[in-house]
Amino acid sequence: MLPKSVQQLIESLSALPGVGVRTAERYALSILKKNATEAQAIASNINNLHRGVKKCPKTFMLIDADQELSPIYLDERRDKHIIMVVEDALDVVALEKTRHFKGTYHVLGGALSPIDGVGPEQLTISELLTRAEEDKAEEIIIATNASVEGESTALYLQKQFADNNDIKITRIARGLPAGVDLEYADQLTLSRAITERTAL
Amino acid sequence: MLPKSVQQLIESLSALPGVGVRTAERYALSILKKNATEAQAIASNINNLHRGVKKCPKTFMLIDADQELSPIYLDERRDKHIIMVVEDALDVVALEKTRHFKGTYHVLGGALSPIDGVGPEQLTISELLTRAEEDKAEEIIIATNASVEGESTALYLQKQFADNNDIKITRIARGLPAGVDLEYADQLTLSRAITERTAL
Repeated sequence: MLPKSVQQLIESLSALPGVGVRTAERYALSILKKNATEAQAIASNINNLHRGVKKCPKTFMLIDADQELSPIYLDERRDKHIIMVVEDALDVVALEKTRHFKGTYHVLGGALSPIDGVGPEQLTISELLTRAEEDKAEEIIIATNASVEGESTALYLQKQFADNNDIKITRIARGLPAGVDLEYADQLTLSRAITERTAL
Repeated sequence: MLPKSVQQLIESLSALPGVGVRTAERYALSILKKNATEAQAIASNINNLHRGVKKCPKTFMLIDADQELSPIYLDERRDKHIIMVVEDALDVVALEKTRHFKGTYHVLGGALSPIDGVGPEQLTISELLTRAEEDKAEEIIIATNASVEGESTALYLQKQFADNNDIKITRIARGLPAGVDLEYADQLTLSRAITERTAL
């Protein structure tokens, strides 16, 4: 029904997370409505993406290709003895927006998921163990997602550090999200909110 | 927080319809997770988009750049005396999926919206009038959206053909959508469903 070049783009865009054919159609038509120069700007941004990015060899956060290490890690005001372990670069973005954390991060690159073929070797876990030693870590805060994969990754990490009495292992709190009515919260969230209740 | 090349792509993608910063971030990171070759395939599809597409000079449907006229219009089995008027190319895609219509289409290129600077001259309305005459149209089915803009466009089109007694002007039915419980339908939909009730 639609021209070949539109169909090809729709197919490409359908591969983005959460994008079905209908959404991809809308995106493709909206790019078509822009002038060719604007479309080429998007295309060149996609083309330049991989070239402009690398992973920090210490924290595995995404950094500019010409940077040595993550700016957060290099920042002298950040406490290198406290390491927050997250799944993805976007988790760092979300956590930094809170301006609530003064330590450093370690990006795992995902969560353990045997079904998807993601074992400990696919994540930066051995690098975390090395780094914890090098940086004389005092606390590892496990901030993986509250999903099945995130929880089992947390458990795995906890076991890796079990023999090390110098490092405190913590997990970010799970409970009622801000602004949510208790009656609408799901069972698991409520169970955890009760179990992990804090003294006032 | 994120590398420059990622930020630039996020900015580009935020311009897509219904895409906020968070969604654009997810898209950008998912493109980054693909290998560079796959990313370049998306980029080249965007680059080739405008070059591969033109508008049918008769129906204003999107067609391949090397086609003369829309394949639907050229199809001898389609009745050129019946013209379905729609806002966008995607409307044609949606209507064709029903396999319920044997006439031809006319794509307006939007709907009247004075606030957005879209007047009759910005749409293919004069071309529709010319075409209706050339093709000896017997029926114009107005299939613009059920939005304020779509309704006022329908009214405007109706007026354009008011003097012409040879052409029947119809509007696609508005009423209860399939599979929807009456109690959940909004007031306007219900009012129209009552007004436009059909004899059984």
